Amino acid sequence: MKNSQIVIDSLPEDKLSQDHFRQINVPLPDVESGQVLIKTAAISIVAGARAGLQGSANYTTGPAVGKVMGGAGVGEVVSSNDEKFPEGVWVLGATGWQSYSALSTDSLTRIPSDRDPIDYLGPLGANGMAAYFGLLKVGRALRGDTVMVSAAAGSVGHFVGQMAKIAGCRVVGVCGNDLKCARLTDELGFDIAVNYKNHSFRKDLKCATPEGVDLYFDNTGGPILTSALFRMNVGGRIACCGVVSQYDTSSPNAGPKGIPGLLVNKRINMQGFLFFDYSNEYEPAREEISRWLNSGDLNSVNDEFRGLESAPEAFVNLLSGGNFGNRIVRLP
Amino acid sequence: MKNSQIVIDSLPEDKLSQDHFRQINVPLPDVESGQVLIKTAAISIVAGARAGLQGSANYTTGPAVGKVMGGAGVGEVVSSNDEKFPEGVWVLGATGWQSYSALSTDSLTRIPSDRDPIDYLGPLGANGMAAYFGLLKVGRALRGDTVMVSAAAGSVGHFVGQMAKIAGCRVVGVCGNDLKCARLTDELGFDIAVNYKNHSFRKDLKCATPEGVDLYFDNTGGPILTSALFRMNVGGRIACCGVVSQYDTSSPNAGPKGIPGLLVNKRINMQGFLFFDYSNEYEPAREEISRWLNSGDLNSVNDEFRGLESAPEAFVNLLSGGNFGNRIVRLP
Repeated sequence: MKNSQIVIDSLPEDKLSQDHFRQINVPLPDVESGQVLIKTAAISIVAGARAGLQGSANYTTGPAVGKVMGGAGVGEVVSSNDEKFPEGVWVLGATGWQSYSALSTDSLTRIPSDRDPIDYLGPLGANGMAAYFGLLKVGRALRGDTVMVSAAAGSVGHFVGQMAKIAGCRVVGVCGNDLKCARLTDELGFDIAVNYKNHSFRKDLKCATPEGVDLYFDNTGGPILTSALFRMNVGGRIACCGVVSQYDTSSPNAGPKGIPGLLVNKRINMQGFLFFDYSNEYEPAREEISRWLNSGDLNSVNDEFRGLESAPEAFVNLLSGGNFGNRIVRLP
Repeated sequence: MKNSQIVIDSLPEDKLSQDHFRQINVPLPDVESGQVLIKTAAISIVAGARAGLQGSANYTTGPAVGKVMGGAGVGEVVSSNDEKFPEGVWVLGATGWQSYSALSTDSLTRIPSDRDPIDYLGPLGANGMAAYFGLLKVGRALRGDTVMVSAAAGSVGHFVGQMAKIAGCRVVGVCGNDLKCARLTDELGFDIAVNYKNHSFRKDLKCATPEGVDLYFDNTGGPILTSALFRMNVGGRIACCGVVSQYDTSSPNAGPKGIPGLLVNKRINMQGFLFFDYSNEYEPAREEISRWLNSGDLNSVNDEFRGLESAPEAFVNLLSGGNFGNRIVRLP
């Protein structure tokens, strides 16, 4: 029995590539007091992890050459002395990109047996929590609001738009290709979706928001944020969730010129947030999201790769906008 | 009896100069029903009016070549059919840069006879209202906070720092020369002041904020805002009041690179505001500010020019940071 791991081979200075990772096999980890051994079933690939590799965000702590790539995963407890996490239960935890991990039970979320563990890498995990708290707590979405969301086909964005529809909002999604636009409206109920890569984007966005934007859920920063600022209504809110346009580069864009001028003139509120600040409220949120999943009001779209060895490709492809929904790597 | 006026001779494309204005003499205005005739005693010169000349802000409405330059003034009612505003009472209103104006009584604030009318161009007028509501309502200053304010020696900034001291905060002022820095600490009770024009500014600001910044009151935008972002504490607030660094130029700076990345990581809140959104709360604010003035806890510093003809110079000089406190032009 070996533990297969994807480790960081070098830290990226510019664009990330698969060459920044390598796969190794090591012995199974020692299981210390308070820990259990988990066999990883699937890991979640998220854009914020790229910021972690720059040491510029709090999403992960201490990435370093030779260390296992960090990230959330779900798996089965295969060795345990803990009554609350006996062998056979499923958990969500910071498994990292490896087939086995020894984790402190304090850090684990036990997955109820009536739910698909994969949902804990999607609507009931970080993606869902970021969408839920960002939209409803930070952004204070109200019935009748026009809500704009960037990276709308992404792991967080595809939930934001659907949750905004549940909240009675008009939803405008922004993403990077026409096929994604079509899926957002046809499959997920977005009112309209616009492709920011089209030359007509600013005009398209204006047409898509005839009554302006009340709440902008920002997953990208960069030029889309600048365009959003010009469409915001007086008293509008911007929930700042991520900055995917700026992670994978050594030369980030200049900041949005309209800040702070447009914030003043339009009395706009911008609020940055990290979903784990709401960890005390995860359980009621998961209950509500589970009801939406059960009723069919919320669809979780998974975009899966198979095999731990595919994780670097899944990550690099995600950063270039290749995913629709939750990017997940299933382990055999 | 002539009405002396400063009119806009041309709109500035780059830096404003006195040549953008000219002085004319016209007959006294007709006084329509619902209006009174006011003889201007003093006008307030504020940086936000420069934004108005760009058509990029809501501070003034409709500046145009040939029109009287807009702005707030105080004066005496010299002709009236209105019982509530009889001849001899003093008022605050949008007099513009002219010696006489006919204004609707609906738009006027009557000045109590026990207060110096000049205070209505300072602590009891727009400058004081912007400082009071921006600091206490928008910024939610709390005892023990470290409050940073830019344009700290300006018409709004010099009140912000003093009000923050009254609220029990530690106050760090940023301004553009060492003499102003000395006056802020020696005369107005700021804990420390730093000169943003020094090459060591970022280091100086770091030394001045060993426990970071909880609340940044932003009057400038631009590079000082960028520097502030790096000093903000997790959960910090930024009250966006004005953007004086960007008004008087045809080539505004790029926006702050740390937005939205630093907003996310540090869960920072930025809120733009315009003081007149709080007009329903002016009276209790004026009562509290009057108590502070009477007790000596708040000092209003006036920086005066004499004669209507000096208004363009007073304005241009203000935009280059020439003022300390409320810039006022007294009319004979």
